[in-house]
Amino acid sequence: MASYSGKNLHMSIFGQSHGKAIGVVLDGLPAGEAIDLEVLDAFLERRRTGKNALSTARREADRPVFLSGLEEGRTCGFPLCAMIENGNQHSSDYSELKDHPRPGHADYTAWIKWAGFADMRGGGHFSGRLTAPLCVAGGIALQILERRGIFIGAHLTEVGGEKDTPFPLRPAPDLFRAVAARPFPVQDEEAGARMQQKILEARQEGDSVGGVIECAAIGLPAGLGSPMFEGVENRLAAVLFGIPAVKGVEFGAGFAAASLRGSENNDPFVWEDGKIVTTANHAGGILGGITTGMPVTFRVAIKPTPSISRAQQTVSLAEGTESELKIRGRHDPCIAHRAVPVVEAAAALALLDLLLDPPAVGMKDNRMEELL
Amino acid sequence: MASYSGKNLHMSIFGQSHGKAIGVVLDGLPAGEAIDLEVLDAFLERRRTGKNALSTARREADRPVFLSGLEEGRTCGFPLCAMIENGNQHSSDYSELKDHPRPGHADYTAWIKWAGFADMRGGGHFSGRLTAPLCVAGGIALQILERRGIFIGAHLTEVGGEKDTPFPLRPAPDLFRAVAARPFPVQDEEAGARMQQKILEARQEGDSVGGVIECAAIGLPAGLGSPMFEGVENRLAAVLFGIPAVKGVEFGAGFAAASLRGSENNDPFVWEDGKIVTTANHAGGILGGITTGMPVTFRVAIKPTPSISRAQQTVSLAEGTESELKIRGRHDPCIAHRAVPVVEAAAALALLDLLLDPPAVGMKDNRMEELL
Amino acid sequence: MASYSGKNLHMSIFGQSHGKAIGVVLDGLPAGEAIDLEVLDAFLERRRTGKNALSTARREADRPVFLSGLEEGRTCGFPLCAMIENGNQHSSDYSELKDHPRPGHADYTAWIKWAGFADMRGGGHFSGRLTAPLCVAGGIALQILERRGIFIGAHLTEVGGEKDTPFPLRPAPDLFRAVAARPFPVQDEEAGARMQQKILEARQEGDSVGGVIECAAIGLPAGLGSPMFEGVENRLAAVLFGIPAVKGVEFGAGFAAASLRGSENNDPFVWEDGKIVTTANHAGGILGGITTGMPVTFRVAIKPTPSISRAQQTVSLAEGTESELKIRGRHDPCIAHRAVPVVEAAAALALLDLLLDPPAVGMKDNRMEELL
Amino acid sequence: MASYSGKNLHMSIFGQSHGKAIGVVLDGLPAGEAIDLEVLDAFLERRRTGKNALSTARREADRPVFLSGLEEGRTCGFPLCAMIENGNQHSSDYSELKDHPRPGHADYTAWIKWAGFADMRGGGHFSGRLTAPLCVAGGIALQILERRGIFIGAHLTEVGGEKDTPFPLRPAPDLFRAVAARPFPVQDEEAGARMQQKILEARQEGDSVGGVIECAAIGLPAGLGSPMFEGVENRLAAVLFGIPAVKGVEFGAGFAAASLRGSENNDPFVWEDGKIVTTANHAGGILGGITTGMPVTFRVAIKPTPSISRAQQTVSLAEGTESELKIRGRHDPCIAHRAVPVVEAAAALALLDLLLDPPAVGMKDNRMEELL
Repeated sequence: MASYSGKNLHMSIFGQSHGKAIGVVLDGLPAGEAIDLEVLDAFLERRRTGKNALSTARREADRPVFLSGLEEGRTCGFPLCAMIENGNQHSSDYSELKDHPRPGHADYTAWIKWAGFADMRGGGHFSGRLTAPLCVAGGIALQILERRGIFIGAHLTEVGGEKDTPFPLRPAPDLFRAVAARPFPVQDEEAGARMQQKILEARQEGDSVGGVIECAAIGLPAGLGSPMFEGVENRLAAVLFGIPAVKGVEFGAGFAAASLRGSENNDPFVWEDGKIVTTANHAGGILGGITTGMPVTFRVAIKPTPSISRAQQTVSLAEGTESELKIRGRHDPCIAHRAVPVVEAAAALALLDLLLDPPAVGMKDNRMEELL
Repeated sequence: MASYSGKNLHMSIFGQSHGKAIGVVLDGLPAGEAIDLEVLDAFLERRRTGKNALSTARREADRPVFLSGLEEGRTCGFPLCAMIENGNQHSSDYSELKDHPRPGHADYTAWIKWAGFADMRGGGHFSGRLTAPLCVAGGIALQILERRGIFIGAHLTEVGGEKDTPFPLRPAPDLFRAVAARPFPVQDEEAGARMQQKILEARQEGDSVGGVIECAAIGLPAGLGSPMFEGVENRLAAVLFGIPAVKGVEFGAGFAAASLRGSENNDPFVWEDGKIVTTANHAGGILGGITTGMPVTFRVAIKPTPSISRAQQTVSLAEGTESELKIRGRHDPCIAHRAVPVVEAAAALALLDLLLDPPAVGMKDNRMEELL
Repeated sequence: MASYSGKNLHMSIFGQSHGKAIGVVLDGLPAGEAIDLEVLDAFLERRRTGKNALSTARREADRPVFLSGLEEGRTCGFPLCAMIENGNQHSSDYSELKDHPRPGHADYTAWIKWAGFADMRGGGHFSGRLTAPLCVAGGIALQILERRGIFIGAHLTEVGGEKDTPFPLRPAPDLFRAVAARPFPVQDEEAGARMQQKILEARQEGDSVGGVIECAAIGLPAGLGSPMFEGVENRLAAVLFGIPAVKGVEFGAGFAAASLRGSENNDPFVWEDGKIVTTANHAGGILGGITTGMPVTFRVAIKPTPSISRAQQTVSLAEGTESELKIRGRHDPCIAHRAVPVVEAAAALALLDLLLDPPAVGMKDNRMEELL
Repeated sequence: MASYSGKNLHMSIFGQSHGKAIGVVLDGLPAGEAIDLEVLDAFLERRRTGKNALSTARREADRPVFLSGLEEGRTCGFPLCAMIENGNQHSSDYSELKDHPRPGHADYTAWIKWAGFADMRGGGHFSGRLTAPLCVAGGIALQILERRGIFIGAHLTEVGGEKDTPFPLRPAPDLFRAVAARPFPVQDEEAGARMQQKILEARQEGDSVGGVIECAAIGLPAGLGSPMFEGVENRLAAVLFGIPAVKGVEFGAGFAAASLRGSENNDPFVWEDGKIVTTANHAGGILGGITTGMPVTFRVAIKPTPSISRAQQTVSLAEGTESELKIRGRHDPCIAHRAVPVVEAAAALALLDLLLDPPAVGMKDNRMEELL
């Protein structure tokens, strides 16, 4: 098990779907940072379910209780623990699933890995619900970043073949806010309507769809990240692949760069207002693992929700037979739109962690001068 | 800087293009593993340059000298250090580049990060040459894995719009060997000929192309990897993004999964010879971050080589002006085919590291029984 | 901040004295381990306060609530979170302390480090109360170790110049149990009575005393630990120095070895029942950072409790003046006896972590065979 | 194996006594730091052998070759690799030792751990020779610290019952330099003469002695280090126990604090020239794991050299019998005086690593302002 991450800002996530609570410990937050709990709650609201026909009817409050680390609305330097109680834990339908792993889920691999001891009711520690503590942690990181002029925004860029407009070369905070304010996180609302149609169609057919999320971070200084294994790509990917259902991550032009010529993919340098910028951003704001100062951009592939109501083929673990499985209950026909803030949260955590890296040149001669 | 990686098998890579030597320290290799240096050299040969018109005429021996950790052809349990001396270090052309960052290279970000102190001649620590020690380490890991029936193979699956056949559902070691034996690492040699044509065209136009590499690992037990941040995807991606020029990583169906329905993307479970397998592998052999026992499959996007002979727009760092840059010397018009063994090496290191994870159930009551 | 530790078994401790709760997340416990909560509570009882005149009259229940990771009395493989609510949080006396750092406490260093933002009421995250979650985690580790024949015991070996008998060359589990069952954890109860007298004398004089704890772990296989920075000494010390008030750690003969000749300090090897043992144990069961199979023994120095009722000299942070401080309230005149189970807990965590290290020779060819 | 260490400044040590070379990779050094190789060599000279009757007649050049990371006398930001070739590798006497583990050495534990595969000629990776790369790394760290007014000095404070004067409350750099300049590193040369007499007596009797080293670091800002597991004590101890033969580490009053009253052990705070200091330093400059700004002081116990020429009792691993062992060749009758610079080196590495920790309050809003 390793549900922890981070080099300077250390996050440890705990909880399973049907335990008493889920939560997160964040160790390494700078002290004295004001955290606006209403802003945080508005952020968490974006990933919550039950809003409309696109999501399930279940209702989770997911309101975090801060057990430590916050004092009078500010980080106090000590590890912050946020807990979210699990309210509704009825698990009547679980007996069948226990022996019949759901295709596309971690049921089978968890059974193998922990020899049947894992508490997999409701998906256990693999439940999408575990993205709630990730969003609590990420929402806090976002506030700390925004105070320093660093903004992160994401939108759903593809669902079922329907595509949203890509972010512009230099997206502005207002664009991020506008997308975040919409019930369906896209730029082009007509494209969004077509995407929602695809989701509804899938639901009517007892099926599900996936999607692609584009994310950008602006305001980052040039020079963050390190070569090889601690590059910005490595550290973002290491957190992003921690979001359930993520199956691909690409930066800048990503896989499309494979079809470009070097002369097309190389971003020309120019001076602009005394700063060096590039006139395009195929690099996604990262060269050699290090930020250029241009927006850091990446795309994340979300697989279709594996829980579908259609009959599927699976096995009985106990009896060694094959059987047909129909998953009961209501399930999201798509989670990609709800994953948009989760991607922002993951990015905020990785980027704040990078910002806390030691300086690459010089060193604070006297740490205290800076502190007081 | 963080050119080290690995939880159990710790790799630390050092060296810059024009220093005395480059190399790697591998700490955590199990003792007593026979390493066949001829097999290793054949593996390293696959990434070496100068073979044909597709690569540059430079000639590197890249033969590693083992300073420690190998004794009578076996790992001895102590950290292994392999050093590759840098022979030909003429850097006559560097003066111009020092002030004019090459588009698409780390020149600019390195200059910013280390305030001009970084030794960037020949690309410094960012040089593709640093993949040689990665291949030494990975070649050793491959031998240890193969002895246990775990095989890793990769092929170039896309260059300039031309595509190779994807790997079959269950590739065999012989297929990997056949691809590896070819001068151009593809399955379908006609597709390979078309790809090579694309590379030659790019070269003739003073340009370059990128590519996509598909990789598969077979023979892995089910149950490797952990949820969230230490999943197989996270740990593979963390190493793969350490390869220069990698801009995207996707597992199984990856980005294509975003266009699939759940009913298409979910891999049905069936029994086969007393084992549970899936009849398709959109999951890339990984569910919930944990191996299913099916082949682990992934694809890696390699951007076009940034060094091209065409004129490009850049800036003078010192003078604050813009200028045109023509990079002299011979450069690979494509590195994607040479990156194929590098991807195998990176995968071998991440997977051996995963195999060395502690058991998830039970514990060896007496470690020594196993050892002696 | 870094209140986390462990390579394989990862522990993250959170909470401050006057927050809502304190607790611990343990990630990496093997699944399927039965945890007897009554046995755990008996262990926790040993560090609780209020038993007698030697400790303060405060009463803490310190009963952990398991939020995750335990299912039907067994570890389920997922991260375990145990929370202990903070009941009585009156902090009436704190206003004076806020400006007047208590000598020997972390008040001043916390004020400097976090620029006054740290919530230091009741000692904040530095409070001895934070050893409660450490004991919860360690108590769980102890049960897992004992099931495999590994036992850890400690006793108070020195207080105020009075000394207990050292542990014999090969202490037995029964000896550990006998010491643990006593209200004052010593072997020689007469020596214990003299120690208690010293503590009472200190209390009567508004003062405090420290002590030395000896700890031994038996049943460990030979071959655990690694050279240099991951040796048994390094990993034990890294956790032991995490216990507040610990100022020294020595293994085997420790500082006394400095006065011995090599011929006295070297432990001769002999065969015994087909096993190699040593006839003495000046090495503390560790040679080259690796266990010999003899008991691992170490001693820990606990400083006198810094909270004393006598007047002490300190400064006003705000006014830049010097002043006399009298700390009000009741305080333990000695914490060394209560630290005995805390040392056992810390040792259990470090040793279980070591037992989960990857094998140094060979490798499980198929991890699953072992699991099922 | 884990011969690596460090959170921000990562050190990986490699090599065995009779391999081709030993060395170290240091990853994370700030760029642009001038390293004076003559000063470094003078530092390394302090640990070299062969000076006089107190050490063996062997002669090692131990001059490091820098393979990477240094450019024109400055750190270049890339990982620094320093290699020291192993010259004289005759190992004629090894055949007997292979089967007869030397008491007090790692021969037996290495044999158990790596099932006989470890290359233990000359002590293998456990050889005291491996402190040479540690000193190269530490000597570099020392120069970086001294440039910022942080000085580290150590002296031999006890050998065979003879004691040197302890360091004063606030040692000055000149005192450190004076001790370092002496052939025998003590403050009181008469005490030093008595210590040397003890060493010569031991040698004449075919025996050895150990010692205690006191070390102090001055000029450190207050506020370094973190509570619990990343405190200054934890991080120093984690490196110090990596020095072969170290069996104990204590900070400030250390074990002696156990006999003190709180009123004696608590260091009173006073204002001095607008700064808060303490009038004594029983805390060793560390409260709650965090520096107070007073000198960080600690003592390290070095066991007597296990290699002695007297007959010792051991076993035959192969034959299961017991036998007498006489170790041939010349051996140091004491290594404690040569360990003095090694302790300084280890301390420098741990403290530089701590100085590179992220800030605990605030955050650089724009990293680049600081860099350029």
